[in-house]
Amino acid sequence: MSETFGLKDRTAIVGLGATPYWKRGQSAPCTLQELICTAIIAAAADAGIAVPDIDGFAYFATDFDTGGLMETLGIREVGFSSMLTGSGGGSAGAVGLASAAIVAGLAETVVVVCGVQQGALRYGAMPSTYDATAESCFYQSAGLVGPGHMFALLAERHMHLYGTTREHFAEVAISTRANALTHPAAIMKKPLTLDDYFAAPMISTPHCLFDFCLETDGAIAVIVTSTDRARDLRQKPVYVHASAQGGAGEWGRSIYWMNMPDDSFAASGHAAVARQLYARADVGPSGIDTAQIYDHFTSQVLMQLEDYGFCGKGESGDFVASGAIRFDGGSLPVNTDGGQLSGGYIWGMSHIREAVDQMRGTAANQVRDARFALVTGGPSDIPVSGLILRAAA
Amino acid sequence: MSETFGLKDRTAIVGLGATPYWKRGQSAPCTLQELICTAIIAAAADAGIAVPDIDGFAYFATDFDTGGLMETLGIREVGFSSMLTGSGGGSAGAVGLASAAIVAGLAETVVVVCGVQQGALRYGAMPSTYDATAESCFYQSAGLVGPGHMFALLAERHMHLYGTTREHFAEVAISTRANALTHPAAIMKKPLTLDDYFAAPMISTPHCLFDFCLETDGAIAVIVTSTDRARDLRQKPVYVHASAQGGAGEWGRSIYWMNMPDDSFAASGHAAVARQLYARADVGPSGIDTAQIYDHFTSQVLMQLEDYGFCGKGESGDFVASGAIRFDGGSLPVNTDGGQLSGGYIWGMSHIREAVDQMRGTAANQVRDARFALVTGGPSDIPVSGLILRAAA
Repeated sequence: MSETFGLKDRTAIVGLGATPYWKRGQSAPCTLQELICTAIIAAAADAGIAVPDIDGFAYFATDFDTGGLMETLGIREVGFSSMLTGSGGGSAGAVGLASAAIVAGLAETVVVVCGVQQGALRYGAMPSTYDATAESCFYQSAGLVGPGHMFALLAERHMHLYGTTREHFAEVAISTRANALTHPAAIMKKPLTLDDYFAAPMISTPHCLFDFCLETDGAIAVIVTSTDRARDLRQKPVYVHASAQGGAGEWGRSIYWMNMPDDSFAASGHAAVARQLYARADVGPSGIDTAQIYDHFTSQVLMQLEDYGFCGKGESGDFVASGAIRFDGGSLPVNTDGGQLSGGYIWGMSHIREAVDQMRGTAANQVRDARFALVTGGPSDIPVSGLILRAAA
Repeated sequence: MSETFGLKDRTAIVGLGATPYWKRGQSAPCTLQELICTAIIAAAADAGIAVPDIDGFAYFATDFDTGGLMETLGIREVGFSSMLTGSGGGSAGAVGLASAAIVAGLAETVVVVCGVQQGALRYGAMPSTYDATAESCFYQSAGLVGPGHMFALLAERHMHLYGTTREHFAEVAISTRANALTHPAAIMKKPLTLDDYFAAPMISTPHCLFDFCLETDGAIAVIVTSTDRARDLRQKPVYVHASAQGGAGEWGRSIYWMNMPDDSFAASGHAAVARQLYARADVGPSGIDTAQIYDHFTSQVLMQLEDYGFCGKGESGDFVASGAIRFDGGSLPVNTDGGQLSGGYIWGMSHIREAVDQMRGTAANQVRDARFALVTGGPSDIPVSGLILRAAA
């Protein structure tokens, strides 16, 4: 490809805004539109720009009606309104999409935003809205009604193939909870022990209650602009060092799982994206100082640790058992804000938020001298995504 | 912005594939997935590339499940799967989105695809699926059930303000039909006279039957790659010279129409996109040799001619009455394939197809020495979009 193609360090995250997180039973006292707009207004204030200076919107999973946001926020004109296809797997990739818009000259100041109101849903509401498709006829009738059931299959296979245990899953839940205790934005404030973990109800074997992420109300927005412009703004820029989205076709469509080799089945589906990401970056896994890893299920954190090369295939259980992902003394502090398991579940946006805080050096659980942060989106259907942020010198 | 930002001539359309168009009552004898895949396979063959070389998908209005397309087409891995938000207004912009992916280094060979099966819908099926929203409660109860009713309001206002007449709308329908007669892909093969036009049933005043686009089954795909790579491929490249998407907030949300100034209300909503587009291009309106203008309604062709600067505000009636948009002798041949009014309605993709054919010099109704072609997407909700293609020297 031509030498001028690519994104490396050409854009930066310059603004960050978030609402509080509300847990199930304590729903946000406002509309989703108010949540979204609150996060955007806060991100603009953080960046030191006027809200009407925003001239682009990048989404994933759900678009939030750009015309409506413009009307509500007083934005006169935009040059970009696009989104990744698929679901939560696009969160990290939406920052890359915003960056692509900027280097393509389509917009200068692009907001990535997502908000959710999950607390108001009755239990089981999501799967009951799924369309009846050629695929769902197979897996729903087999009891695979929602993501909780489907990802449990992958976890079981990983245990069978590699000797991964529930203690390994527990370590993800417990280390993440420890981070939540000292992070002001995180919801879960009660320490979690191994006894607590094993006393919890089983939801979908081998996943118990603490292997599942939270259901949260809240919204998070980040503002991306060119590195040139970032220099003039209020915050220390956080460079978009490398971005990747997409994936390999063998993963993410459940009806085809049975045809997959084990390497791809008991996996996160991120291997292809991880390879693309590192190929575009100055660092490989050993250069990552902290990883914010999409944690809808504990077992998928393990499989992403493998697919992003922090340990060998099948070795993630031993890796976490060594204390490697702990904030306190670990070689790769993971989900330092409490993640989606204990912090708040905004479909991947909280991972971007925490990575920005880490790269600014302002995180509640700050990793010392952190220069590169990995953020992942998904695992889910294609596209999944990954992002490496770089701290300003 | 940095000198290396922007898209100008850095990518090219190198492959074009389409299914036949089927009109209402003669539905395509296959699934939508087959239509889409047929178009993609044809586009790859046209470009001289293998289908698995495709590594990105750019959509608008509807995404077609990238994982499913990969499975069906044997594509192993992708680096891009994104779409414009909104509806048909994104068609021209999807080529720009594909180009943005390429200059951002996310993918090398991106397909833009759309397919529709409208012939199988009962009449009125679309509006009956609309959600009940705060807005739709107002406009649906006022009789504004579908786009046909809503765009009629704008047409009425244009007539009132500027003296535009039904004869002017008829000229769009008649000139476009004339082009369809000599274009092999176009559906409508019966000449249309002014008497025919005035004898047609009124659908939503002032729009009669011939002011409405067709309802069509079919699919079209184009393949975009870097200009560097395009040089090695089979077809003469058609350069993506300039692209714009987005729009100004004052247009596109019907509940706010009543607050709009007339300049924006009796309009196409493309003025902001047109300004962005020309600012990025080597040419202005006078340099455009042929325009493929989104024609879901005749009146919106008139308003786009104004908003893209081919004539002054309110002067489009006189402009078309002069014969300016005729293929035979006009200064700006418009919708030379018969457009969506008489050719086929693939949500804007046929306009891209025809512009590519014009820039290759292979169009059925070839505009002599055509160097620059304009393509528009929309008018609809934000984002609308525009595209200028440039012929290879």
